[in-house]
Amino acid sequence: MIQRFTNNPIITPEQVKPSRPDFEVMCAFNAGATRHTGKVVLLVRVAERPIKRDGYVATALMNADTKRIEPLYIKLDDPDLKQDDPRLFTYKGVNYLTSISHLRVAESSDGRHFTTADQPSLLPESQYESYGIEDPRITLIGGDYYINYSAISPLGVVTSLARTKDFQTYERLGVIFGPDNKDIAIFPEKINGRYYAFHRPSMKHLGSPSMWLASSENLLDWGHHEFVIGPRPGMWDGERVGCGAAPIRTSQGWLELYHASDPNTRYCTGAVLLDLDEPWKVIARSGQPFFCPEAVYETTGLMPNVVFHNGLVDNGDGSLTLFYGAADDKTCGATVRVDEILASLK
Amino acid sequence: MIQRFTNNPIITPEQVKPSRPDFEVMCAFNAGATRHTGKVVLLVRVAERPIKRDGYVATALMNADTKRIEPLYIKLDDPDLKQDDPRLFTYKGVNYLTSISHLRVAESSDGRHFTTADQPSLLPESQYESYGIEDPRITLIGGDYYINYSAISPLGVVTSLARTKDFQTYERLGVIFGPDNKDIAIFPEKINGRYYAFHRPSMKHLGSPSMWLASSENLLDWGHHEFVIGPRPGMWDGERVGCGAAPIRTSQGWLELYHASDPNTRYCTGAVLLDLDEPWKVIARSGQPFFCPEAVYETTGLMPNVVFHNGLVDNGDGSLTLFYGAADDKTCGATVRVDEILASLK
Repeated sequence: MIQRFTNNPIITPEQVKPSRPDFEVMCAFNAGATRHTGKVVLLVRVAERPIKRDGYVATALMNADTKRIEPLYIKLDDPDLKQDDPRLFTYKGVNYLTSISHLRVAESSDGRHFTTADQPSLLPESQYESYGIEDPRITLIGGDYYINYSAISPLGVVTSLARTKDFQTYERLGVIFGPDNKDIAIFPEKINGRYYAFHRPSMKHLGSPSMWLASSENLLDWGHHEFVIGPRPGMWDGERVGCGAAPIRTSQGWLELYHASDPNTRYCTGAVLLDLDEPWKVIARSGQPFFCPEAVYETTGLMPNVVFHNGLVDNGDGSLTLFYGAADDKTCGATVRVDEILASLK
Repeated sequence: MIQRFTNNPIITPEQVKPSRPDFEVMCAFNAGATRHTGKVVLLVRVAERPIKRDGYVATALMNADTKRIEPLYIKLDDPDLKQDDPRLFTYKGVNYLTSISHLRVAESSDGRHFTTADQPSLLPESQYESYGIEDPRITLIGGDYYINYSAISPLGVVTSLARTKDFQTYERLGVIFGPDNKDIAIFPEKINGRYYAFHRPSMKHLGSPSMWLASSENLLDWGHHEFVIGPRPGMWDGERVGCGAAPIRTSQGWLELYHASDPNTRYCTGAVLLDLDEPWKVIARSGQPFFCPEAVYETTGLMPNVVFHNGLVDNGDGSLTLFYGAADDKTCGATVRVDEILASLK
């Protein structure tokens, strides 16, 4: 059902210029996607760190007072250093990420071959972004591109909103979902007078990482939270679920392609079909994923066995292109047919 | 600084009539408070369970399909039962509470001696409330009493809103903060055209249980989230912080009396003073709590060493009455003077 691009990966870390000479690009992945002036535009998450020195772990933090990104080196034999995940470490009891992400435009005329900008488009700048900004989703509403992204800091993981008309200048609109929340995707049109968005809270106490819906009058204030779907223990989506990009309207309902992981942190993609008027009501859902990590660029990398899309473009011919992160370090593309997905749902 | 009522505890579980003959009241605590028609009205959290049978742990769940509350008994020697907290247990991998809470009116003409209604005022009824509804806060806005409360279910801990004019009939307004979020208090007036509320997300990943602010145009949709204060490791509020009731406007700023726990789960009360126009900006904060568990009814009970207020009444003479849960099972009262609290802040 899934057709990977033959030129995958379409963006690798090696192809992306660091934002400054003392940094190196670790990952270029989890891109938001849209169409603009005849081109496909990606906002790629570019994860950087200070150039590695032997015997040190390196990361960087944005200082919210100076707005500067400052390198941090810690000796590998420091007894206060603890690390058991390639994406994070603990030093003196404080959690850090091993990289700091910004968002950067990449463009393509044919939707398959991309040119990545030399400079960042959106950099961390607020106190909620001192560990970086990640995993954007783009929704076009009334001529404006709304970009939501995860903002990471010691205060928690929140989701913020920005707006652009041209991918040249951006207006920051603040935090729209407080912690712990990521994997937000805003629907492309109102339903019965209100905007809708998926969100994915992570719970400390009761509950599992699940897809919820909220609605809004103005895209900034969100309420009327409703549970949509949760993990199904023992199945392919048994550990956590979260939305991909904004859903597609079909005659049968809102079609959302979502990611899920099993207890081994293997991330696959399935679909859920939701009522057009009451989108918290589930009509059908994938019994099996239609897309799993199989290609070598998906099974090897920073986090092996991950396919994760937050960019999706409707090709207008009954097919969709997913732009996805492979193994948490490269950007890839693949197409699926809407009718085939709908036919596969139960 | 704190003056406890001489008739504490003012409501005990033994004084409250169970909602049905096969149930017993375990706790009557954590009451919201306001004034209505010359009386002080409390909405008390009443926690019940099926009458205990020897050799069993008992709880009850609200079935969201039938709206009925159904008892659940599990044998204490069942190998699938795990319990190490008096408030919850795990059975076959699913978490349960050891009681189910509803909200019930208690009234007083003198503000010190209360009569508790024989019947519940608000019972669990939605799928988000199947484990009960808890810890209400009451804010009077434009002639309506807005009641927010924690709604507990296997889907997570959320905060919902209800409205009443008379404490006789209630209108449910849905979930205003998704999981994991509780300890919400809505300000009594708009600031620069927007409503404000404290909220207290619990984070699974980065961050500590902290007080945040959100604002709203309509009390239902909330956005513009801002961090206010977090735990201060090594101090009296080192583990978690959360608001009490709605803040009091003073000439120096918004005065919020907040609860905090240390790593030993000892809950005390301190204060924070916030900017009148930009209430996420901290002017001053308690170096030491002004109220800690000391009386025997605070140091003994379901959860010893807890004072936790979500009800507060302004007496109009420079003093405030805190209605607080003592040791998580009884309702008590105490007064403080605003000028003394303000003078104690740093």
